[in-house]
Amino acid sequence: MDFNDVINQRRAINHFDPNEPVSDELIKQVVELAAKAPSSFNLQPWSLMILRDLEEKKRLRKLAWDQPKVTEAPVVFIFLADRDGWKKGHPFVEKNFQEMVRAGSMVPEKYEWFTKVIAGLYGTDDEKSQAFACKNTGFYAMAVMFAAKSLSLETHPMDGFDHDAVRREFHIPDNYWIPLLMAVGYMDRTKTLHPPNWRKTFDEIVVKFT
Amino acid sequence: MDFNDVINQRRAINHFDPNEPVSDELIKQVVELAAKAPSSFNLQPWSLMILRDLEEKKRLRKLAWDQPKVTEAPVVFIFLADRDGWKKGHPFVEKNFQEMVRAGSMVPEKYEWFTKVIAGLYGTDDEKSQAFACKNTGFYAMAVMFAAKSLSLETHPMDGFDHDAVRREFHIPDNYWIPLLMAVGYMDRTKTLHPPNWRKTFDEIVVKFT
Repeated sequence: MDFNDVINQRRAINHFDPNEPVSDELIKQVVELAAKAPSSFNLQPWSLMILRDLEEKKRLRKLAWDQPKVTEAPVVFIFLADRDGWKKGHPFVEKNFQEMVRAGSMVPEKYEWFTKVIAGLYGTDDEKSQAFACKNTGFYAMAVMFAAKSLSLETHPMDGFDHDAVRREFHIPDNYWIPLLMAVGYMDRTKTLHPPNWRKTFDEIVVKFT
Repeated sequence: MDFNDVINQRRAINHFDPNEPVSDELIKQVVELAAKAPSSFNLQPWSLMILRDLEEKKRLRKLAWDQPKVTEAPVVFIFLADRDGWKKGHPFVEKNFQEMVRAGSMVPEKYEWFTKVIAGLYGTDDEKSQAFACKNTGFYAMAVMFAAKSLSLETHPMDGFDHDAVRREFHIPDNYWIPLLMAVGYMDRTKTLHPPNWRKTFDEIVVKFT
């Protein structure tokens, strides 16, 4: 699918068809295609919980403003942004370093330097760790929405949920922030989409300070 | 350009050709195409500073680990994530509400309700405001990288810079966090790219907690 069509036709869909299933294979394709998104030092500090079970989705819906799409969509993702994803000893920090060495883009002697650099950028205070986790998971979530659309799936990113209650209900450890939920599936074809929302123009996006 | 090619061929380019210019028109196209990215309640809390002037890029490079691409790339973006982008009275919060009313998706009577909801989600503490600003600007930055690639431009997202020094040097107000810089241009064709970095597999991305 052409990128222009992907970005223009991607919409936040409110009504999913609960009777049109999405295969595990298709979900896997979306998750791995989107994983080509870049990240800070390739640390990929994102994880996903994938909800399919109706009872589980009902538990989430109760904490997400009772939005019908949480149970209507066949699949719901809980995006997790790992605020510890820069720490020495973290499994993916270690794996990332080893993979760089294997690829020849890093030498083992630089391990102390590397872990110090990323701790300096992302670990000196909570503001930095939060920015690191949420920005990178933002990259990934955007890539998931485009990848889904390119594979004919619809999505809806959701912020309308009780963050701390979802954390408790699903036993999500404190190192993760939950930047968004996402409904995934096919649109209920009996419904119509409203026209796209307005967007900021170039002149509204670009700023200068003197 | 096909989305699969865009996501597979997008790479973080280290060597830009300083002699291959990028037109203002093309930059505008990238900025506005990417602006179709979704955001929390369509608040679009992202802004861009666009650097083209060599002296300005030199000032930035000094604060960005002296990375050659900061001055070699014809264009450098400073991404700004607006941590106040949910506040009642903020120009784009107000414009967003008015546009929703104009489009018929909102009624003027819901103004108090709307501003209270977004303040509750994004404004009750710094952790939430930071997550809101950085996640949404992450969506936008990812869309910029894909939009640029689809228009034959290359990019490099950069975290290697002194956040607070860049803020001071460019007089960036405190409400903005700077999640990344981005070099934009064409690749120096005398250089070769290293193979793509490893990525987490489906099984490494998906987590469960009991």
